[in-house]
Amino acid sequence: MRYALDGAAGSDAIHTDPVYSYAVTRLFDDCGITGVGFAFTLGEGNDLVCKAAQYYAEKLRGRDIEDTMANFGELFKQLSNDQQFRWLGPHKGVVHLALASVTNACYDLWAKKRGVPLWKLLNDLSPEQVVATLDLSYLEDELTHSQAIQMLSVQQATKTQREAILQQGYPGYDTSIGWFNYSDEKVRENCKIALAEGFTAMKLKVGSADPERDIRRAHIVREVAGDSVKVMLDANQQWNLPQAIAICKDLKEMNPYWIEEPTHPDDVLAHKTLADAIAPLKLALGEHVPNKIIFKNYLQTGSASFIQVDAVRVGGVSEFITVSLLCKKYGIPVVPHVGDMGQLHQHLVLFNHISVGHEALFLEHIPHLQKHFVNPVKISNGVYITPQEPGSSCDLKALQ
Amino acid sequence: MRYALDGAAGSDAIHTDPVYSYAVTRLFDDCGITGVGFAFTLGEGNDLVCKAAQYYAEKLRGRDIEDTMANFGELFKQLSNDQQFRWLGPHKGVVHLALASVTNACYDLWAKKRGVPLWKLLNDLSPEQVVATLDLSYLEDELTHSQAIQMLSVQQATKTQREAILQQGYPGYDTSIGWFNYSDEKVRENCKIALAEGFTAMKLKVGSADPERDIRRAHIVREVAGDSVKVMLDANQQWNLPQAIAICKDLKEMNPYWIEEPTHPDDVLAHKTLADAIAPLKLALGEHVPNKIIFKNYLQTGSASFIQVDAVRVGGVSEFITVSLLCKKYGIPVVPHVGDMGQLHQHLVLFNHISVGHEALFLEHIPHLQKHFVNPVKISNGVYITPQEPGSSCDLKALQ
Repeated sequence: MRYALDGAAGSDAIHTDPVYSYAVTRLFDDCGITGVGFAFTLGEGNDLVCKAAQYYAEKLRGRDIEDTMANFGELFKQLSNDQQFRWLGPHKGVVHLALASVTNACYDLWAKKRGVPLWKLLNDLSPEQVVATLDLSYLEDELTHSQAIQMLSVQQATKTQREAILQQGYPGYDTSIGWFNYSDEKVRENCKIALAEGFTAMKLKVGSADPERDIRRAHIVREVAGDSVKVMLDANQQWNLPQAIAICKDLKEMNPYWIEEPTHPDDVLAHKTLADAIAPLKLALGEHVPNKIIFKNYLQTGSASFIQVDAVRVGGVSEFITVSLLCKKYGIPVVPHVGDMGQLHQHLVLFNHISVGHEALFLEHIPHLQKHFVNPVKISNGVYITPQEPGSSCDLKALQ
Repeated sequence: MRYALDGAAGSDAIHTDPVYSYAVTRLFDDCGITGVGFAFTLGEGNDLVCKAAQYYAEKLRGRDIEDTMANFGELFKQLSNDQQFRWLGPHKGVVHLALASVTNACYDLWAKKRGVPLWKLLNDLSPEQVVATLDLSYLEDELTHSQAIQMLSVQQATKTQREAILQQGYPGYDTSIGWFNYSDEKVRENCKIALAEGFTAMKLKVGSADPERDIRRAHIVREVAGDSVKVMLDANQQWNLPQAIAICKDLKEMNPYWIEEPTHPDDVLAHKTLADAIAPLKLALGEHVPNKIIFKNYLQTGSASFIQVDAVRVGGVSEFITVSLLCKKYGIPVVPHVGDMGQLHQHLVLFNHISVGHEALFLEHIPHLQKHFVNPVKISNGVYITPQEPGSSCDLKALQ
C-alpha cells in the first residue's frame, strides 16, 4: 500500500520525498478471521519486502494460530535463519522487514482469534508464555531464557497498579510540528497548535546543511513551547561524528530532551564517543537499528539514553519485546519510533509499562495516515486513548 | 544465475543446503562492450537482488563509463543514499548486495574499455584517482579524503618491488578440504590432495552441535597437514558467545591460524570479548559484514586480526577498497571471503598488495563454479596465476 502525504509532511534531512508505504501480510484462518501485519517503507522497494514476506508466509500455511504462538520463539528462529534467505541479511534489510510483516500478522490474528486487543492478550500471558514467543539466541551473554522469565515474574506483583494507565491514556508526543521542509513560520504555528491540543512534548527535524538553520529553528520551538515542554531534535543520521560533536554543543543551550539519530545507525562506537562528548545531553536512536544484537551492543556501550525500537523495522512484535526486555535490564526507556503511525505501538507500550515495568514516558504521534486505518489511534488532550477493538489496530481500509 | 553444487560441497554449520547463485548486472556500452558484475547469494532471494540492481542500473543509462568512474565515489554515495531505497538498509541487505552487483559491473566495463585487467587499471591510477572512486562518508573520524590520498601516496615509491607478485602469483588457501557435511575420511583425503597440489594453508568448517566432532576433525587436519601448514577453522556464526569462549579454548591446542565467524556478524562487542578471552588465538571475520561503518567499529575495537571483506557482499569494488584502506591504517591484513570464487578478488588482492601496501598473505580458493566462468581463475602449485584478460574476470558462460 502506498499513501500520498500532504506537502512537506514526513520530510527529514535524509528522506526529502518519502512515499509512506506498507508491505502488508494478511493471514486468513478458517473461521473467517484475517490477521494483518505490516512493515513500513518509504516507497521504492516495498514490492521487494512483499515478495519476501510471501516467502515466509507460505511456511505458515495450514498451521493453527494458537499452536503457532505457543512456541513462536522457535518459529521466529527458524524463519529468520532460513538458510538460503539468511544470506540476504542476516536479520536485517528487506528479509527482516518481511519477517516483521509476517510476525505482526501472526500477533494480530492471535488477538483477533481471542477477541481481545493485543495489549490485553500480551498482559494476560504468564511470563513463561511471553518468553516462549521470543527468540533469545545470540543474547546468551546478556539475557537468558530463565533471566527473561525472572524479569517478568518480579513485575507481576505490581502490575495492577500500573494498569491505571489504561484509564489515564498513554502520553503522546507530537512529531508533526517540525518536518524538515516546513518553513520557520509553519513550525511556530504548529508548536502553538500542539500546545493547544495538550501535548507537553514535541519534536523538530534538524540536520540542515546550514547549522544556523537548525539552531534558529530549535530556539523558535523552545521560545513558543516554554521551558517546561520537552523538545526533541531529530537529525535523521545527517551528521558525521565530528559534525555531530560540534553542532550538539551549540544545540545544548536550548536544552533539548534528546538528540535523535545524530549519525549512521550502524556506528555504535561513534554514538558512544558522541554521548561522552556532549553529556549530559542525551541521545535517542533505534529507528534504523534492525535487530536485537545491534541493540545489545548499543546498550552495552551505554551510548543511547532512549531506545526507539520499531516493531515494523525489527522482526515484529516478538523482537520488539525482546529488545524491550534488554532495555529494562539496562534501565533504558523504550520510546518506539512509529513507522506504524502508533497503531501497533499503542498496544506495545501498554505491555511494556504494565508487564515489563517500563516507565510510561510517551509515544510518538504522527497523524499522516489516520484516515487509512479502520480503527485509527485516538488522541485526546495529548494522550492515547486505550484501544478496545480486538487485534493490533492494523486493519487498513483499502484491504477491507 | 543458479548453480548446482556437487554433494556436500559448500555446506557449513548454518548453510546446510546452499544453491550458489549470482545476481548479475550487465551494462552494455555503445562500442559493443559488456560490463559484468554480480553479488553472491545462496539461492532464494536472488531475484530480489536482481530487481533492486535493475533499479540502480537504470540510473546509469546514457552515462559515459570514463566520466562515471572519474568521480565514482560521489555516484556511489548518491545511489546508496537514494532516499526511498535507503530505508530498506541503509547500506545492508538486499539493496546493498544489489549496489555491489551494479558497482562491480561498472569497474568491469571500465577495465574492458581500457583493454586491461582490473588489477592493472587500479594499480595505474594515481592516489587521487583511486580516492575519487570511494565514498568515505561516515568515516570522517578515521579516514578523511586527504588521509586516504596520503596513505596511497606513501606507497608509490615502493610499488615496483611489490610488483614481483605479478610473476610469482598470489598465494591461495584451500577451503574445500573440509566442508561441513564431509565425512572425517573425506576431510583426511582432501587434506592430502591439498598438500599435493601445493597449498600451505587450508580451512575446516566447524560449528557442530557436538563440539567433540569439531575438535576431532580439527586434529585430523593438523595431523595430516603437519605443523608448518596454516589451518583455519570456520564456525559460520554457529556459536553464541559463551559457547565460543568454551570451544575456542579447547581448539587452541591444535594451533589454528584463525577462528572464523565465531558468532553473529553484527555483534562487534561479543567478538571483542571473545578475542580478549582466547588471545593469542586470533579471529577472522567479514563475510557477512555489510559495510565500511561496521568494519570501522570492528577495527576500532581491535576484535578481528584478519578482515574478510567480500566485494560481492559490501558495495562492490569501491567499498572493498575503502575497507582495505581502513584495514591498512590499523595494520590488519585483508583476506577476502570469495563469494565470487576468487574471480574478482584475484584482481583486488593484487591492488591491495601493490598499491595499498598490504601483505600478500593468501586468497581463499573454492573451485565449485570454475566451469561456469569464461576465464576461470588459474591456480598452480598453490598460487593464483595473474589474470591477463581485460576486465574483472567475471564473465559467465551462460550469459555469452
